[in-house]
Amino acid sequence: MSARFTVLTGGVGGAKLVDGLYRILPQNSLTAIVNTGDDFRHFGQPISPDIDTLLYTLSGKSNQALGWGREGETWNFMAALKSLGGEDWFNLGDGDLALHVLRGMALSAGEPLSGIIARFAEAWDLQLSILPMTDDAVATWVETDEGLLPFQRYFVERQCAPKVQAVRFEGAAEAVPAPGVVAAIMDCDTVLVAPSNPWLSVDPLLAIPQIRKALESTKAPVIAVSPLVEGKAVKGPTAKLMDELGLEVTNHSIAAHYGNLLDGLVVHNKDEAPQSVAIARTDTLMKSPKDRERVARTVLALAAECRR
Amino acid sequence: MSARFTVLTGGVGGAKLVDGLYRILPQNSLTAIVNTGDDFRHFGQPISPDIDTLLYTLSGKSNQALGWGREGETWNFMAALKSLGGEDWFNLGDGDLALHVLRGMALSAGEPLSGIIARFAEAWDLQLSILPMTDDAVATWVETDEGLLPFQRYFVERQCAPKVQAVRFEGAAEAVPAPGVVAAIMDCDTVLVAPSNPWLSVDPLLAIPQIRKALESTKAPVIAVSPLVEGKAVKGPTAKLMDELGLEVTNHSIAAHYGNLLDGLVVHNKDEAPQSVAIARTDTLMKSPKDRERVARTVLALAAECRR
Repeated sequence: MSARFTVLTGGVGGAKLVDGLYRILPQNSLTAIVNTGDDFRHFGQPISPDIDTLLYTLSGKSNQALGWGREGETWNFMAALKSLGGEDWFNLGDGDLALHVLRGMALSAGEPLSGIIARFAEAWDLQLSILPMTDDAVATWVETDEGLLPFQRYFVERQCAPKVQAVRFEGAAEAVPAPGVVAAIMDCDTVLVAPSNPWLSVDPLLAIPQIRKALESTKAPVIAVSPLVEGKAVKGPTAKLMDELGLEVTNHSIAAHYGNLLDGLVVHNKDEAPQSVAIARTDTLMKSPKDRERVARTVLALAAECRR
Repeated sequence: MSARFTVLTGGVGGAKLVDGLYRILPQNSLTAIVNTGDDFRHFGQPISPDIDTLLYTLSGKSNQALGWGREGETWNFMAALKSLGGEDWFNLGDGDLALHVLRGMALSAGEPLSGIIARFAEAWDLQLSILPMTDDAVATWVETDEGLLPFQRYFVERQCAPKVQAVRFEGAAEAVPAPGVVAAIMDCDTVLVAPSNPWLSVDPLLAIPQIRKALESTKAPVIAVSPLVEGKAVKGPTAKLMDELGLEVTNHSIAAHYGNLLDGLVVHNKDEAPQSVAIARTDTLMKSPKDRERVARTVLALAAECRR
């Protein structure tokens, strides 16, 4: 049986690593387990930002310039919505709406999110498993100096400006992993953790008891890619948030956060690294497809070392 | 108190007459009561085709070339939807979706359709009352030689090809007129019936008992514009449907259909006219805004005659 790989992932940075892995691994050997803590309803439509970013990235539809959404997107829906007095703090592109509207219909008909995403991935001919972490409702809330904010209000509307005091994952303790999630962690050869924000994008997965337990008990090595590049976050609030949580913005803090779940960490060439786990180095900034493949190769090589 | 005008209307042809009236009457003297029998849910979104056509027409947003929808519309939503395996027999434009999505949100929150449409009309600065015939669910069904079809399946998907045996308005007998509808008929100076399809677009209104009763008892004259132009329907299935229902395609049949509700009928210059009601003639084909205004003036003049 050929080797199987499972990657835990969140938003844009995570999707880039998954894309790199998808490009170099044999077809149908990869499973991506995706954060759904950022999911919310907007204008009545169910949005799954991290899953959708991954679908767009892997199918070559992602908007390189914007860094989110679809390439060649148009915005007539939002323009008409504004003319009717609709809220405009969260932009939904015209093409992007198709995912949300079809997802909403299927959810209303009782189909679980995991089944819907599998159909979307099949429609776009993607040769991997994309699994939401759970079919249950889990919602990331951010406790800030401006009060408790739903994730998207913090992240999109307030552009991560409020100071974070803590992060909560409502519903995670009771959530059951989506079908295939636990098996993908237990029965694979390598577990990878994408360079997504550990506190906002990976922690929702770890907050689901059966996922954490599977990571603790799997025989596969668990290898993460640090989200820090030259001591900073590439995009998003990782460094700012670490600072606000009283943590040093270093790979020591990243490794300490994952604790004994972690066997190896891929860090940026120029960054210092902890000695508590196996380390590999490369330029972890992923600008081009070649960059993504290089980082994917580095993380797979470190995993192979850890398996020895 | 200035004169008040109430027009009963359905789809595209009706919207043109309402536009003509709106252009020549004083602001806020006109109330349009609109067919909602064509309303349906598509992709989970509530669509009100006749109301939306009227909103687009009066606000100068209607697509002249297509004959429906918005000017300058884009179709990225439908393209993405098709790529995901969604049904494509009913096109929803990107900008058009805003009306449906906002309507869906508001309906889910418990707001009645009449309140939602009033907000939309206000957002687009329309100086008339647009009232759905009812806030209750009424659904037009067409009995055909291919079986019983929901209106949009007959009209859009099957392009009116099946032979019609009868038309039903599910829920009409129990429906209550929307707030203001009965008053608009009872307390106005003139009731107009737009050149919409009498059997498909006007009958749903007449099938609501309190609307029919108000039309029977109002002191205002009731004046219709015939949908026939040189013995044919301008657009849509009126003539074909009359034929299938065993009716002569003449203004006699139109007048007979409205029966004693009707005081006057505006017919096309070249068409014969019944003697049972007061008649005015003009070129009823409304291509330009000037045409719409001319037909509106003709119908208002006939109404003034009937009031004498």
